[in-house]
Amino acid sequence: MPESPIRKLVPYAEQAVEKGVKVYQLNIGQPDLPTPKVVLDAVRNIDLEILEYSHSAGLTEYRQALARYYRNNGIEISTTDLIVTTGGSEALSFTMGTIADEGDEVIIPEPFYANYNGFSTAYGVKVVPVTATIETNFSLPPIESFEEKITDKTKAIIICNPGNPTGYLYTREELEKLRDMVIKHNLYLVVDEVYREFTYDNHKHISILEFEGLENHAIVVDSVSKRYSMCGARIGCLISRNKEVISTAMKFAQARLSPPTIEQIAAQAAMDTPSSYFKEVAEEYTKRRNVLVNGLNQIPGVICPMPTGAFYCVAKLPVDNADAFARWMLAEFEEDGATLMVAPAEGFYATPNLGKQEIRLAYVLEVDVLKKCLNILKKALEVYPGRTK
Amino acid sequence: MPESPIRKLVPYAEQAVEKGVKVYQLNIGQPDLPTPKVVLDAVRNIDLEILEYSHSAGLTEYRQALARYYRNNGIEISTTDLIVTTGGSEALSFTMGTIADEGDEVIIPEPFYANYNGFSTAYGVKVVPVTATIETNFSLPPIESFEEKITDKTKAIIICNPGNPTGYLYTREELEKLRDMVIKHNLYLVVDEVYREFTYDNHKHISILEFEGLENHAIVVDSVSKRYSMCGARIGCLISRNKEVISTAMKFAQARLSPPTIEQIAAQAAMDTPSSYFKEVAEEYTKRRNVLVNGLNQIPGVICPMPTGAFYCVAKLPVDNADAFARWMLAEFEEDGATLMVAPAEGFYATPNLGKQEIRLAYVLEVDVLKKCLNILKKALEVYPGRTK
Repeated sequence: MPESPIRKLVPYAEQAVEKGVKVYQLNIGQPDLPTPKVVLDAVRNIDLEILEYSHSAGLTEYRQALARYYRNNGIEISTTDLIVTTGGSEALSFTMGTIADEGDEVIIPEPFYANYNGFSTAYGVKVVPVTATIETNFSLPPIESFEEKITDKTKAIIICNPGNPTGYLYTREELEKLRDMVIKHNLYLVVDEVYREFTYDNHKHISILEFEGLENHAIVVDSVSKRYSMCGARIGCLISRNKEVISTAMKFAQARLSPPTIEQIAAQAAMDTPSSYFKEVAEEYTKRRNVLVNGLNQIPGVICPMPTGAFYCVAKLPVDNADAFARWMLAEFEEDGATLMVAPAEGFYATPNLGKQEIRLAYVLEVDVLKKCLNILKKALEVYPGRTK
Repeated sequence: MPESPIRKLVPYAEQAVEKGVKVYQLNIGQPDLPTPKVVLDAVRNIDLEILEYSHSAGLTEYRQALARYYRNNGIEISTTDLIVTTGGSEALSFTMGTIADEGDEVIIPEPFYANYNGFSTAYGVKVVPVTATIETNFSLPPIESFEEKITDKTKAIIICNPGNPTGYLYTREELEKLRDMVIKHNLYLVVDEVYREFTYDNHKHISILEFEGLENHAIVVDSVSKRYSMCGARIGCLISRNKEVISTAMKFAQARLSPPTIEQIAAQAAMDTPSSYFKEVAEEYTKRRNVLVNGLNQIPGVICPMPTGAFYCVAKLPVDNADAFARWMLAEFEEDGATLMVAPAEGFYATPNLGKQEIRLAYVLEVDVLKKCLNILKKALEVYPGRTK
């Protein structure tokens, strides 16, 4: 198993905290926004005498509620097209176990969510990267660069839309190109849509489930973690209209018995979150994104494309090795008693030596704190011994 | 992935229910006993504004509480020797991923908890069975039968103590034999101790963590599911004093981010369950076991050893194929409008054609219901066309 780039610096951060240094964490996508009141109220009002296993596919009522949620978003799926999972993580793990055997390959545009690597490695599946570049805002690489990587071992294309770590939201044209390719080569198209509700500047998320002709190809990974700021619930789901995929994934689901019961009840209650909550969240993230990304681009030598979705951005720094820089910030730097934890982006690339100058930042802290973080980063880059220009 | 023998008959049961037949479920280890009040109160009093990820190894306070629990049970472990998992299932999965690579082997006395097969298959690990027999009460097979199966691919011996599906509680002498063998051959000894609190007739559970010399060999899988009748919480843990094991397992833990937060808080509260609860539970299960097992042995042609732990028993029936019989009970039989769902034991064996006459029963329903179940089974066997004698 490869080490998580998101958490690998945690021991350094712990040492910094022990020295009395305040560490602002932009490394992990843990939003600071409150969980909707309806969710916590449902937990507090829980009416159970026995905390039992649920169905391996999840509580029936919750699956019905999920089907309604997608229907309200223009996607017709039935309760038998989905399996409730323990976080989006488990949906990814089930997907990998379902679609690929040891030695098979999946093609993923890089940089990508590092745990795709973890779940692939666990099942002996090889990740074949296609590189997206910061210069093109991490948009979809030319479709030919996917096609030239397809072998008889290739089982799927995996994308994250909107993207973690890039914040890039794929366009309809890009998704259509992927659709045509997976149909042509008879591959699965696995789309991680956990950030589906997080889009900015009037851009609209387009689900792969909206496309006709993909019934047997499309697999969607979703989660309530970010949508309702309830990452700790560990409730996600796997969706596919391909009966064979669901039937195989159900064997994995049965092996682990069931997803957590109380948290499913909480996730079901989350469906009643008022729309005002999402409006406020979108406004807040837009503000944060603008402050962070504009601020980054104002630091000499730093480049950061403006993301249109999720709540991450990837920035290129004027340093040789962003991993060493990130460690140095924790171990040796402080500004007014505080420093910054970021995720070195190298771990989001499968191709060796790519992303060495890049970091991922999650704008999950409030604007005033983000401004402090920008100042810390600016000052750190001014004095960092390994600065390149 | 092999199909779960515990749940494979669920579609038949659903059809029976649709026809208006009451189905008593003795197939699955879902206790009907109430979850301790302290657990549900902790959930109802939850004081959170953001339902955040916990540490990948689990909430610090909960890990401290777990270390205290084991210390109170005579086992000194530190908070860094354990990882909180999403159920015992995930602890098993992490263990398999940690100790073995594709093509490696693990030796398990059969019949064994069927999901050991599932988690092995998922990682491409081969299960090598050593057969325990109903005639010897499913006690540990001769140690030579393990030794002759050891190859250079063998990574671990896995046992469940007390046993699911057998209810057999290993003696100190048996555990010492296993200890000597794993030290001699430098193997891991993985012990699933999730039923550690369920022992009867003054027998005491002996944890593998109590043995000296096994620091680098012993891995324990545990769970709060059965102990506090909170299966739906999906909170377990993996324990080992082997630093390398914990360090590798942590990579799996980080890939799935964290176990569910609310349920960890619930599990921590469970530590305050009054001892009167366990006394009542032990008395209740003893009563049920006696009624069920004595009742089974009174049915002509049925043999069932008296279990000394857990809440399962394996019974041998006077039928050719217990799987077909179990399906038939659901599809074609009823007694006073009710029938019975059991787990065919064949799925608990890795050796083909073993256990064909056996079923697993969980005594998780109250005595009066168990008596009805015994009557249904007796009547069903009287008229079953495939009866052998």
